[in-house]
Amino acid sequence: MDAELKVYPECVELGSHSEVPTEKYGARANAIVNLMKADLPIPKAWAFLCDSVHKFQNYEFPKFKGLNNSLNQGILVSLRASPISREWGGPETLLNIGMNWRIHGMLKKALGKAAVDALYFRFIQDFATQVARLDAEDFDILIDGSVNKNNINYEKALKSALILFEEETGNEFPQDPFDQLQQSLKSMASAWNSASARILRAARGAPVNAGLGLIVQEMVLGIGDGEFGSGIAQFVSPVTGEEKAYGRYLSQSQGRAAMKEEETAQYLARDKRGPSLEEICPSCFSSLKSYANIVTNLYRDDMQLEFTVKNGDVWLLDATPAHRTGRAAIAIVIRLQSMKLITEEEALMRIAPKILNEILHPQIDPKEKRVQIADGIGASPGAATGKIVFNASSAVALASRGEASILVRIETTPDDIRGMHSANGILTERGGINSHAAVVARTLGLPCVVGVNNINIDQKNKKLHFENGTSLSEGDLITLDGSTGQILSGSTKLIEPELGGNFKQFMNWADKTRTMGVRGNADTPQDVRLAQKFGVDGIGLVRTEHMFFDTHRLNVMRELIFAEKTDDRQEALNLLLPMQREDFFEIFSLMGEQSVCIRLLDPPLHEFLPKSREQVVALAESMDLPLSKVINRVEELEEINPMLGTRGVRLGITVPEIYVMQARAIFEAACLVKKNTGRKIKPEIMIPLVSANREVELVKARVDAVASSVQSETGISVEYSLGVMVETPRAALRAHDIARTVDFMSFGTNDLTQMTYGLSRDDAGRFMREYVNQEIYDEDPFLTLDIHGVGELLSIAADRSRSVKPDILLGLCGEHGGDPESIIFCHEAGFDYVSCSPFRTPIARLAAAQAELMKR
Amino acid sequence: MDAELKVYPECVELGSHSEVPTEKYGARANAIVNLMKADLPIPKAWAFLCDSVHKFQNYEFPKFKGLNNSLNQGILVSLRASPISREWGGPETLLNIGMNWRIHGMLKKALGKAAVDALYFRFIQDFATQVARLDAEDFDILIDGSVNKNNINYEKALKSALILFEEETGNEFPQDPFDQLQQSLKSMASAWNSASARILRAARGAPVNAGLGLIVQEMVLGIGDGEFGSGIAQFVSPVTGEEKAYGRYLSQSQGRAAMKEEETAQYLARDKRGPSLEEICPSCFSSLKSYANIVTNLYRDDMQLEFTVKNGDVWLLDATPAHRTGRAAIAIVIRLQSMKLITEEEALMRIAPKILNEILHPQIDPKEKRVQIADGIGASPGAATGKIVFNASSAVALASRGEASILVRIETTPDDIRGMHSANGILTERGGINSHAAVVARTLGLPCVVGVNNINIDQKNKKLHFENGTSLSEGDLITLDGSTGQILSGSTKLIEPELGGNFKQFMNWADKTRTMGVRGNADTPQDVRLAQKFGVDGIGLVRTEHMFFDTHRLNVMRELIFAEKTDDRQEALNLLLPMQREDFFEIFSLMGEQSVCIRLLDPPLHEFLPKSREQVVALAESMDLPLSKVINRVEELEEINPMLGTRGVRLGITVPEIYVMQARAIFEAACLVKKNTGRKIKPEIMIPLVSANREVELVKARVDAVASSVQSETGISVEYSLGVMVETPRAALRAHDIARTVDFMSFGTNDLTQMTYGLSRDDAGRFMREYVNQEIYDEDPFLTLDIHGVGELLSIAADRSRSVKPDILLGLCGEHGGDPESIIFCHEAGFDYVSCSPFRTPIARLAAAQAELMKR
Repeated sequence: MDAELKVYPECVELGSHSEVPTEKYGARANAIVNLMKADLPIPKAWAFLCDSVHKFQNYEFPKFKGLNNSLNQGILVSLRASPISREWGGPETLLNIGMNWRIHGMLKKALGKAAVDALYFRFIQDFATQVARLDAEDFDILIDGSVNKNNINYEKALKSALILFEEETGNEFPQDPFDQLQQSLKSMASAWNSASARILRAARGAPVNAGLGLIVQEMVLGIGDGEFGSGIAQFVSPVTGEEKAYGRYLSQSQGRAAMKEEETAQYLARDKRGPSLEEICPSCFSSLKSYANIVTNLYRDDMQLEFTVKNGDVWLLDATPAHRTGRAAIAIVIRLQSMKLITEEEALMRIAPKILNEILHPQIDPKEKRVQIADGIGASPGAATGKIVFNASSAVALASRGEASILVRIETTPDDIRGMHSANGILTERGGINSHAAVVARTLGLPCVVGVNNINIDQKNKKLHFENGTSLSEGDLITLDGSTGQILSGSTKLIEPELGGNFKQFMNWADKTRTMGVRGNADTPQDVRLAQKFGVDGIGLVRTEHMFFDTHRLNVMRELIFAEKTDDRQEALNLLLPMQREDFFEIFSLMGEQSVCIRLLDPPLHEFLPKSREQVVALAESMDLPLSKVINRVEELEEINPMLGTRGVRLGITVPEIYVMQARAIFEAACLVKKNTGRKIKPEIMIPLVSANREVELVKARVDAVASSVQSETGISVEYSLGVMVETPRAALRAHDIARTVDFMSFGTNDLTQMTYGLSRDDAGRFMREYVNQEIYDEDPFLTLDIHGVGELLSIAADRSRSVKPDILLGLCGEHGGDPESIIFCHEAGFDYVSCSPFRTPIARLAAAQAELMKR
Repeated sequence: MDAELKVYPECVELGSHSEVPTEKYGARANAIVNLMKADLPIPKAWAFLCDSVHKFQNYEFPKFKGLNNSLNQGILVSLRASPISREWGGPETLLNIGMNWRIHGMLKKALGKAAVDALYFRFIQDFATQVARLDAEDFDILIDGSVNKNNINYEKALKSALILFEEETGNEFPQDPFDQLQQSLKSMASAWNSASARILRAARGAPVNAGLGLIVQEMVLGIGDGEFGSGIAQFVSPVTGEEKAYGRYLSQSQGRAAMKEEETAQYLARDKRGPSLEEICPSCFSSLKSYANIVTNLYRDDMQLEFTVKNGDVWLLDATPAHRTGRAAIAIVIRLQSMKLITEEEALMRIAPKILNEILHPQIDPKEKRVQIADGIGASPGAATGKIVFNASSAVALASRGEASILVRIETTPDDIRGMHSANGILTERGGINSHAAVVARTLGLPCVVGVNNINIDQKNKKLHFENGTSLSEGDLITLDGSTGQILSGSTKLIEPELGGNFKQFMNWADKTRTMGVRGNADTPQDVRLAQKFGVDGIGLVRTEHMFFDTHRLNVMRELIFAEKTDDRQEALNLLLPMQREDFFEIFSLMGEQSVCIRLLDPPLHEFLPKSREQVVALAESMDLPLSKVINRVEELEEINPMLGTRGVRLGITVPEIYVMQARAIFEAACLVKKNTGRKIKPEIMIPLVSANREVELVKARVDAVASSVQSETGISVEYSLGVMVETPRAALRAHDIARTVDFMSFGTNDLTQMTYGLSRDDAGRFMREYVNQEIYDEDPFLTLDIHGVGELLSIAADRSRSVKPDILLGLCGEHGGDPESIIFCHEAGFDYVSCSPFRTPIARLAAAQAELMKR
């Protein structure tokens, strides 16, 4: 202690006049100063610059006057991480630094020997574990022998701990408080710079060379004779956002013990279930509440407080945003707005759009215990419990009995659509975030987990095998959490979504603010109703092929595929026409004069044919065709890369009758609705997979001809617009060409991403996780629009198409239409609308509102 | 005939001072004037402006003084098409317009009644058929009854013809020569404007509204008492280009009868096989020869002459470029250059690069009769005759006995590589111009026909069934023409390529001229030797995967795929390392200090696994693994869109050991060659399927590490460069990013085309023909680089990469590297080189020379 006392330049004592910006000293330092400014009771504290964390390893930490004084006076201190972003995490807190035989002697009188023995023992254990990196269990053993947990012989344990420490480290347990602090600082620095910590925080968005602020703060002991203790409090329900005390207090404790030992801890407010701080120490409770009120006004947000009670006085240690679910988050901003603490705009900006997922889907009750048996990729949010079924028909059968099912498949195909409609959740062994199962599930709003590792589906014996050797059978209950990708055994209590009240008011604010349209993707009248329920400006994508997967229609479609003569083909088309017309009639009736964009048939014909030999045999029988003929046709239509095959407009060019039939169905339906209701139905007809303008010209000529025919047949004229789905890089590059022929362009960013990256969404799951983990891709480009590649194609296409047709309508109808970051991009590119699955439209509406606010 | 005679503005009489540019009056009008300018004997002729062809339908053709005079004087005329480009074709010539009873009377004395009856009858038949659109056969019947063909009763036939004409048309046969001419003009105009003619000439590059020049020319009768006749002559061999009279003359004939009735026609020069013009009329022959000489000097090219002999005098009617094969074409330009008629540059510009295909591969002897039994897409040029085999091992077996085989498969897979190496030609039922079979065949220089319609391959029974019910078995002989796509039955005489002499001299001119490099794609030392034989500046693409398809290596590769432990995997890699090293050693030894660009492993792992159940069972047995395990692994690796799957750098990232092994093999081989020869080996290492710079950084770090290791192990340092294959649109868009990390970029335009269009080269064959026919795509984009889409990505990438690294090496290594139009594009974009299969490198060298000349 003979070193000269001097002020260490990278450490400041915090006070109400300190300038400690979060980016320099971390969030905790900033919070402490804020609380000090509000004159709240905060123990004295010192903060280290974030950058200094990289230096502790290399040189001795010079003593700092004020801090040295406290230590010399026998005041214990804590050492806490103060990361720039709370999400980056940080090393564990170390309490009671400075504890030694001298302090032991000083405190014995006030606290009693047993309590001080315990305090000293715990400090040695924590120091040994966190700083000297010894094994915590070796110290636990020292007190484990004690028969009565409430009557541990800490005196003996303390002595053994000191011996153990010396044996393991070769050094006596340090008695110099300053030495203890210096070792602790170095240890925290090295923990922060460990490889695992770096990877972890990088995953949460921290830069490679992120620093860490550190706070040394005088301990307010939570132990003593009188009302002493510590706790965590927020005065708002984390589940509902209502005003309500939430948290725990534990007498005679320190740090976050109250949360760790929740069962023995006290409630805050009076509670039937047990004792509370309000009863034990009414003045403590009312102080805490009034402090919370001050903090809410200070931060213009509900905060969670970390506090210590010292002999009946409340001391605050930290304030962090109050825990909240999505539902609570909305309730909170609405309340804060009503209190005039924030504006509507601030309220909108405060809610991360993705959090709405929690509200829009049933969720597993957070209070439930989760018994996880496997996990995969959460591909469609929400949760569901049901009986395992291994095929579509079992799902249909259960649904008809009113029973919930989870459809379990290796992967799904369009053949499974009916089963997917009937199931309550979908689990597939294979596939990624954009596999067939995932896309359909999101459209249907069903929870879905795909790419589940280490399970094995035995379709034949209807068994689901897990890696640990256990297995489940058809009819067994499981629960899926499509948000986290977890698969739980048995049934679990779910919380249903609530779309009225706060949610409605909040979405009204968003709608009032946003300038970009949000449409829903909807393939059937049911989907359209769902989209309307969630609130959309129109339908941005009707995928007509999904209309053909109903059993009866599928049969007609197959007749079409097997037709050898033009007559037979026309016969099949004549059967399909009224069905399609009916679909469109219903959709137009529902949507009235709102926009409806119908995509002409897109998938390759083989998608309508069965794959397994069994199914092919069944098809041959049902169609009364020789098996060899059916096999031949199936083989003929097989494709090596179906994504790049004879689909979309290529089908429209090579089998033009199909598009002609669809155009007729659209116009006839529109005429009928116009006649019935007097409403001006203005369908948008969209041509998929275009790569050259000539494709568009050819289809347009046919569609125009059908329009004239229908007009002259019905005497009713229907205005319509014709456009393309931009899915190939070439269509984007040739947008100025294509724009001359069309009224609108809608970007199919799923396929555009596939082609720009050369990435099959069905197969990418195999390496995507590794690619994102290794930061090869910033994000899965199927989840968030790749602004630098795919995004550039969008910008090029937007610029080029507007250069020849300034008022061309531009939209985006891939799954990115429901992704906030992608929506901001579309807003900046001046798109007229985005369209996504109905369940994601509220997210899109909020993101669009935020994009508008960011631009202002 | 009382209408006022006046000069019709759109028709001019041709003379040596006429200005009749080809684009206004067509090629024939231009040729006639050229011949007139050289004072050659040409009958009087009038030419109609090309545009007037669109007007004949709408108004009467006013009489034109000079022409009217001729007609009134009883001179017969011909009417011939004069298209702007000879390739556009045109309606058939009509001879002897003006023939009527009056002329009949006038000519009877000179020619004899029978000859004039015949002349009149033929004219009526031609006029009836071409102008009145009656059926030619109805007229043939009128003379068919005649027992002696040489003694037809034309008097009777003539009368019947006149009656038939009147019956069928309702009008008497027109006697007014002017009326005949006018009807003929209208008929030619309407034929030119028919839908089928428009489609046909559009396919040959004619614009939509193309006009047609028409020539009215006084007939020089080829019939008469004395030496009369007509013929076609060129004084250069169409096969070899040697100076030699080639053509036919037919006494007492008109028009092109000598070519139509070749068997009865006379030779031009003295010939053992029969009588010749040289013998019949020596002065005619020598005039013709001297005229030809004048014409050659006039056109600075060898021309074919259409001529008529009238009473021993030679009259010329037309001069068109002499017919010639590729081989002849080169001999001709070399002779013309030696005669100082043209420069080397002109010689280079005169040869269409694609014509070299004929020279580089064996061809079917043009004299052979072709018995076609089916046809498909000619996917790799040249011809081959051999025994049908249905699998790779039979091809290998035949080759070992020195017998030629044609491998017949539904489609080929990498498993067939050995068989393809052993076969002399490849025929696949499925696939397009860029299917596996096609690409490999072009690399190997094997003729290949793919996408053959209306055949059925019965692999099991080893039968090839044709639509007409016939079938061929294993061992039967067939012949493929990979240039035309024809499949001929039996064996056919082939002509072998000749790469010395004229060809060598011509290619030297090209190499002297071109500034852009031309490299060959070569996967094995054999390929490298082939590339050297054809003459290349380096190797632009070594596809290392092809090295693994040898049976022994394939087994090791499969062991690698099935390895569960790191040790097992390393063991397989340790076996592969020396094999790879040996490959590279040989290649480096052959190429010395010339550039060799090696692509790291590209295909997805499942390409190394068998597909059929049979093969899977065999694999399980040979690897001594449980069948279920093999099946599982095969299924696990299956991909829905393998083109967009886990291949290329994705494999390099997820299974890094493979690239590490390959890098080591490259460096060890390079060190060894350097040590042995003292030559500086500077390998180029290329990473395939890149879509983000981070992929390149990760692989680069590993490759650099291997390089250091090998250097410190061997004490030999090897300079190397690292680059990417730009195959995804994203890599092109992010070229400025990627360029920072790499030394070179090579554009893999096959895959880039697939992704830019969203087009699978394996599947596109199904609609590509229709797409090109309907002009949706100008050309199959796998054949000729799509300048407007894919090309723009190339330009973007070139600009962006040069903006950060001006001296970055840029190349193209797709099949487009052998396509002349694509090469011009690359030259304009300033690429350093193109690379293509060895057989196409001469084409590339010539195209590169032409590109350079065009730029000068």
